[in-house]
Amino acid sequence: MKASIISVGTELLMGEITNTNTVWLSRKLNDHGVDVLFHHTVGDNPGRLRRVLAEAMEESDLIITTGGLGPTQDDMTKEVITAALGDELVENTAWTEYMIKRYEARGRKMTENNFKQAFLPSRAKILWNEKGSAPGFILEDPSGEKTVCCLPGPPREMTWLFEHEAEPALFAGEEAVLAHRMIRTFGIGESSLETALLDLIDGQTDPTLATYAKSGETALRIASKRATAEEARRAVDEMTRKVLDRVGEYVYSLDDEELVRVVGRKLLEAGVTVSGAESCTGGLFGASLTGVPGISAVFDRSLVTYSNRAKKEELGVREETLERFGAVSEETAKEMAEGVRRVSGTDIGVSVTGIAGPDGGTPEKPVGLAFIGLAMEGETTCRRICWNTGDRQANRNYAVLNMLDVIRRALDGRAFREGK
Amino acid sequence: MKASIISVGTELLMGEITNTNTVWLSRKLNDHGVDVLFHHTVGDNPGRLRRVLAEAMEESDLIITTGGLGPTQDDMTKEVITAALGDELVENTAWTEYMIKRYEARGRKMTENNFKQAFLPSRAKILWNEKGSAPGFILEDPSGEKTVCCLPGPPREMTWLFEHEAEPALFAGEEAVLAHRMIRTFGIGESSLETALLDLIDGQTDPTLATYAKSGETALRIASKRATAEEARRAVDEMTRKVLDRVGEYVYSLDDEELVRVVGRKLLEAGVTVSGAESCTGGLFGASLTGVPGISAVFDRSLVTYSNRAKKEELGVREETLERFGAVSEETAKEMAEGVRRVSGTDIGVSVTGIAGPDGGTPEKPVGLAFIGLAMEGETTCRRICWNTGDRQANRNYAVLNMLDVIRRALDGRAFREGK
Repeated sequence: MKASIISVGTELLMGEITNTNTVWLSRKLNDHGVDVLFHHTVGDNPGRLRRVLAEAMEESDLIITTGGLGPTQDDMTKEVITAALGDELVENTAWTEYMIKRYEARGRKMTENNFKQAFLPSRAKILWNEKGSAPGFILEDPSGEKTVCCLPGPPREMTWLFEHEAEPALFAGEEAVLAHRMIRTFGIGESSLETALLDLIDGQTDPTLATYAKSGETALRIASKRATAEEARRAVDEMTRKVLDRVGEYVYSLDDEELVRVVGRKLLEAGVTVSGAESCTGGLFGASLTGVPGISAVFDRSLVTYSNRAKKEELGVREETLERFGAVSEETAKEMAEGVRRVSGTDIGVSVTGIAGPDGGTPEKPVGLAFIGLAMEGETTCRRICWNTGDRQANRNYAVLNMLDVIRRALDGRAFREGK
Repeated sequence: MKASIISVGTELLMGEITNTNTVWLSRKLNDHGVDVLFHHTVGDNPGRLRRVLAEAMEESDLIITTGGLGPTQDDMTKEVITAALGDELVENTAWTEYMIKRYEARGRKMTENNFKQAFLPSRAKILWNEKGSAPGFILEDPSGEKTVCCLPGPPREMTWLFEHEAEPALFAGEEAVLAHRMIRTFGIGESSLETALLDLIDGQTDPTLATYAKSGETALRIASKRATAEEARRAVDEMTRKVLDRVGEYVYSLDDEELVRVVGRKLLEAGVTVSGAESCTGGLFGASLTGVPGISAVFDRSLVTYSNRAKKEELGVREETLERFGAVSEETAKEMAEGVRRVSGTDIGVSVTGIAGPDGGTPEKPVGLAFIGLAMEGETTCRRICWNTGDRQANRNYAVLNMLDVIRRALDGRAFREGK
């Protein structure tokens, strides 16, 4: 099945609100194996809605609209859809009565324009809205080949109405045929990942592979549509194994889990405690890790030592080290990691010191340079990164991802050595 | 001028990411007095992109596309737009050289598909992208009546490229007739702000006032369109004074500056040093403040003391205080603020301890409860907040905003007392 989503509302075109309905509906439709071909947004303008509806009906079997069902003058979705599908509006007295009761229960009086909302297409299946005053509806064109489902705009009403009324009606007889998986990697760029998988990406129509770059990470989506859900799942699993054979080292999640969640889970599972010593990230490592619920069982503290004095006082970094190698150096990073492990008594101490930019770089130590120290089980290692995204915040995020990646690899290595 | 925005990317249709580019661009275009007629989203599919481009060109003078400019196989926006506007792709050697240099500077090698990105429409104005590997471009159709502006998809690249390269080129000859100002407030809800300004909002057609709630803050936009820029500016200024008379206490910026920037600037201007002691925010305060360039002159450290042991060891919080009042209490918050001020020797010590959720709340200490301590010039105060947004991260962000607001008010009070 192919679908388009039409959002109606001038406020969307003015940039007053972000359209979250469309992303939510798209995910829902994809879960049902529906191909979403287009999203369209149009203002409260009958002529343009007609045009975009005609465009959507070209190729889509199902069109979902949101918005424009309210009681005010500019709401005209219902009128346009009804006319375009050759139907007419008639009063649905059951809805009128239902509304009168609801208003009475709240001690409020219906206004004249609320009554307008009970006029609905004669052939439509009505979607009973318990969260607002506008009912939704599902209407087919006379040929029965095209289906339009009209939902209200407020997200709370829309999601409720879709899940409780529209979804069961639209997908009553459905067979599950789509399987997909989002694999997440760190440390390999999008182009390199694509190069490593080029024959798999190009040679395949099913499963399909697609790469997505997001802020220093690359994700890979594998999707398969087969006659049965079982077959589709198997095809995805088989392709997953091929991907792991080639780039497994970089993969940290097979289920679209964030790196920080993966690391948090691994720390909790292994009962390994951790503390941080941060400079250029300013607390972002601690903020990221403490975003994982329950992490207090293993996370003790993170010491944001921004000044050199703080590095010495809090972490015991030596004056000589700072003088000889500088605050941004492998030596300082290692002493920071060892220092925070010592003062906190945790199993792991992880540190970062670097130049986030935009200023402060030199030819020897450019913006984007950072050192990630890891002290664990008596051994201290250091990773050097040098990647200037051109943006201070993005550089800092990238440094935090590297801290998490260093911990992930250390935990995996430890589990491997222990034969787990 | 009429415009349409086309977002290209199958991931949008899959519901994998929310389209924030469109709302941002819509606001920008509306600021320039451009009527945005449609938003369209289409997958990485040449045929469908051609169709939707044709639809957009029906009525719009300006079409902005985002996405599909990357180096991978499925990126094809450039190819489709170039062909549709009757141009051809030629290598832009200046871009190739620029890219080679940038890759060399990072010690990375360009892959074959990166070179593809230097092929650009022969007639286009190139938009130099300093934030990524895909240049944007502006291309007119042969008649010169339709303009298409192609931007990359990642929001950070797109916004930078639009503001620095596309906007100046597209609106070069524009008469300045619109003036606007985004006033930012903290500590007053959207409904309260609206109530306080109701007659100004309702009674006015120019300047217009609109409120925007964003993550614990409320912004107020004042806009005026007049015959001359001078007149428009004056109308905005006059309205600004009326707003300040009514709700000035809550206003921290008249120029859409973030609270953290305002606080960072005030600290730097006053030469007042600061350190933090964080619990529930996990480092978010430090991360936020160190996002301000140059802040190292006044920011010394932030100690993220997640465990009670860390609170005692790092900050000298007393065992009795933790036992009698609990970690989330006014007493603990105050000792944390005093402790970090003492160990760091800064002018201000600010602290936070609270319950971010989703779990851990009790009837006496519910999720959303937090205490913000401030130690300054020998005096320690505490602000109690209790506001559960239902989201851990949002609760933490709200706590950080309160820490910043407490500092802002302390600095303003100090400046007032000193007669500045």
